[in-house]
Amino acid sequence: MTLGSELENDFLEFLKEKSSYEEALSLIQWDLRTYAPKKGRQQRADVIGFLSQKLHHLSTSDKMKNFIDELKGQTENIIIKHSIEECEEDYNRNKKIPEQEYKEYIMLCTESETIWEEAREKNDFTLLQPYLEKLVDYNKKFAEYWGYEKNIYDALLHMYEPGVTTEVLDEVFPKLRNSLSNLLTQINQSTNKPDPTILQHHFPKDKQEQFSLEILKRMGYDFQAGRLDETVHPFAISLNANDVRVTTRYDEDDFRMAVFGTIHEGGHALYEQNISNSLAQTPLATGTSMGIHESQSLFWENLVARSEEFWTNHYQLFKSFAPDQFENVELQDFYRSINEVKASFVRIEADELTYCLHIMVRYELEKALINGEIEVKDLPELWNQKMEDYLGIRPNSDKNGILQDIHWSAGNFGYFPSYALGYMYAAQFHHSLTKTMDVGKVIKDGDFGKVKDWLGINIHQYGKMKKPLQILNDVTGESLNPQYLVNYLTNKYSKIYQL
Amino acid sequence: MTLGSELENDFLEFLKEKSSYEEALSLIQWDLRTYAPKKGRQQRADVIGFLSQKLHHLSTSDKMKNFIDELKGQTENIIIKHSIEECEEDYNRNKKIPEQEYKEYIMLCTESETIWEEAREKNDFTLLQPYLEKLVDYNKKFAEYWGYEKNIYDALLHMYEPGVTTEVLDEVFPKLRNSLSNLLTQINQSTNKPDPTILQHHFPKDKQEQFSLEILKRMGYDFQAGRLDETVHPFAISLNANDVRVTTRYDEDDFRMAVFGTIHEGGHALYEQNISNSLAQTPLATGTSMGIHESQSLFWENLVARSEEFWTNHYQLFKSFAPDQFENVELQDFYRSINEVKASFVRIEADELTYCLHIMVRYELEKALINGEIEVKDLPELWNQKMEDYLGIRPNSDKNGILQDIHWSAGNFGYFPSYALGYMYAAQFHHSLTKTMDVGKVIKDGDFGKVKDWLGINIHQYGKMKKPLQILNDVTGESLNPQYLVNYLTNKYSKIYQL
Repeated sequence: MTLGSELENDFLEFLKEKSSYEEALSLIQWDLRTYAPKKGRQQRADVIGFLSQKLHHLSTSDKMKNFIDELKGQTENIIIKHSIEECEEDYNRNKKIPEQEYKEYIMLCTESETIWEEAREKNDFTLLQPYLEKLVDYNKKFAEYWGYEKNIYDALLHMYEPGVTTEVLDEVFPKLRNSLSNLLTQINQSTNKPDPTILQHHFPKDKQEQFSLEILKRMGYDFQAGRLDETVHPFAISLNANDVRVTTRYDEDDFRMAVFGTIHEGGHALYEQNISNSLAQTPLATGTSMGIHESQSLFWENLVARSEEFWTNHYQLFKSFAPDQFENVELQDFYRSINEVKASFVRIEADELTYCLHIMVRYELEKALINGEIEVKDLPELWNQKMEDYLGIRPNSDKNGILQDIHWSAGNFGYFPSYALGYMYAAQFHHSLTKTMDVGKVIKDGDFGKVKDWLGINIHQYGKMKKPLQILNDVTGESLNPQYLVNYLTNKYSKIYQL
Repeated sequence: MTLGSELENDFLEFLKEKSSYEEALSLIQWDLRTYAPKKGRQQRADVIGFLSQKLHHLSTSDKMKNFIDELKGQTENIIIKHSIEECEEDYNRNKKIPEQEYKEYIMLCTESETIWEEAREKNDFTLLQPYLEKLVDYNKKFAEYWGYEKNIYDALLHMYEPGVTTEVLDEVFPKLRNSLSNLLTQINQSTNKPDPTILQHHFPKDKQEQFSLEILKRMGYDFQAGRLDETVHPFAISLNANDVRVTTRYDEDDFRMAVFGTIHEGGHALYEQNISNSLAQTPLATGTSMGIHESQSLFWENLVARSEEFWTNHYQLFKSFAPDQFENVELQDFYRSINEVKASFVRIEADELTYCLHIMVRYELEKALINGEIEVKDLPELWNQKMEDYLGIRPNSDKNGILQDIHWSAGNFGYFPSYALGYMYAAQFHHSLTKTMDVGKVIKDGDFGKVKDWLGINIHQYGKMKKPLQILNDVTGESLNPQYLVNYLTNKYSKIYQL
């Protein structure tokens, strides 16, 4: 064994320690959001604090610095090479902010989240305003610490979607926004609208659960390496690639919540379950970015499970769990209704088409805030104006407008674009898949193994070994292109709304 | 703030770190034994190994040694005083064994456990014999390292039941053994035996669960600070005093498994839930010994839930969950049947009377082994002879004899007496309780709050602040006395078997 490989082994051991803290923290998070009894949570917070601190210390330790200095550019092991890159980025992100400043910021975030809840409840933006102002200032300062090439906002974007810049988004987003806005106008004018009321039937929770489990199984989700539980705000969480858990929420009066929610989280989970075992216990053993992750959940939720072919195959199965309720609902009507498009105030209730328009509003505002082009106090008015411009509706209150999302109050600027990127990536991947197989037929046949394997081989297995735009390029042969999403939505809704 | 109190605060912070590792490890253990998917367990073992190692390092660190040296006998804070005692004991126990030797021992234990499974399956004691020989040697060596006053076995006993010595047990156990053996002989000769077949009815799992939950609730188990889940080998586990979880196992053809099992674990859980909050995140925030813990589970399982008064009150409720099955079973017959006494080969299937006789067999053999009075190779024959002497039956195979328990193969010598101590403590506590209230009436009225509060105030709240025999003395005004258990069992079975 050479000296170099001894150092490499030490580094891998060090990464395992880091990964152990992360795995324990993930289990605690899962437990808190599923089964933990109420009174036990207070002390659990201490445990989270302690383990997070240990993890933070490892990431910013002299030992870590030493590994980075000694191994960067010095290793032939590709896993170690990429791990070092991730660790270095993490190290710099943490080290460049003065410790005291970071502490104050974390406290501010915690406080702001609480104030946000109050402001939303009272429908009073002025309560939140001073906090948001400080948060914006901190984020601008941090962005300067971290550095950027062209636009200060890039430094924030980089945390969620490395490689994607403001320049890229400003090229792509307006095109997407205009196309979607136009399509929405056409849809609004259609005289052939689906009737969503036909979906409103009581559907017992246990039956919804059985159907959801069956679909997860058919998607290829491995129940020996995961499980489905109930929660308030559904999520998927990876403890390790062999233990990736999905959660969902049941509304007995609207099956869409659990069914599409489970498939969505199942898409996230398939990504994490199928990351190569060789990346286990390294920082590479997770999805490469928020956007690519979202592309996987949306791929399954929308491009698979909201497709006509999917329901051609699965409607009988679905009805076997609710035979009386859907006895008189025809497949075509069902399919059209689950794809109803309707501009609404709230992002998380948005349909497949209007969702990205909600993101445009947020992206444009947060970019302008960070660039000092607008002021926090003007946000409510600007928000409402953009909603009217892009979606044609004006929020009736700040509660349903600027105050609806927690992201900014939690200090997350630069996060929102990931959602829209996820939609575009998903459509772009889908287009590539159509070149290798008859996707419609595969879905109609319920032959999901083919889809899962294709995603696994082309995307999942790499974990963080490839950056988002590199994956996009390797899989689709081109860079980010909004046209695929526009085409997909135009084709789909032209048929549904008979445009 | 004086220098002394600064050191004390540092020590308390240090204990919090220790407690955080313990809490994370407890959650992982709970998860592994309830919900963790199969494939994820391998990497989880790494996480357990890592966190256990960190915890071990803290317990044996120079920092710990320094706290002990500086604070021992130097503090007026009673919680810190007792915590230091616990830490010192832990420190010495770990430090007195040479590191290399301890590592070899841990590996031997892991190996022996696997061999034990094989030996039991093949009914071949000779496979296990060489491992047991080594384990006995190690334990003798460890006992010498740790030190003892009179009997080498005391050093091992001390780990599970501090303060209880071989001298005490040799005074008490033979009396108990003789009395129980005599009572068993009388029972065997009785012509008025209960009929256990009347209990054999199908009882759906969900109905058993509902009844078990209701009883837990009536016992005063706090569901805001705990929960009930299913598992293979039932246990109760404390993450912290506000999160103490119970698990159970359902046999649809024998409700006794889940019902009495849940009450038993519920007894353990009540102990942990009612430890004073002021002890939180110190080594005192748990039950004081194996024996006292077992006394709490047995108190509820046997002295409460197998009493005639309990079923006088709860049989109607019980039948409401299984009305058809128990329609024709009279209360008196039901009560007698759940209290059937029958000598059997296997400890964990033993009834309330014969259980302690199983323990006597084990205690006498392990004490003799550690004292070098007998050899491992002779164990099967000695075991069978003692079974015949005390229980009147001779195991038909080693599988049902010497090979049935994992304890010795896992290196646990000195543990078995705790079970019998638990029975005696429970009866002794019960006797004291009868002096403060009409226990029979209280149970008949289902007024369990009174019982729970009495146990809480007299036993639970102290955690490890008091040693087992101190608690016994404080609560009952006397030292260990087997007569209370003998009296209780004699009264009970005289009536049931009409002796």
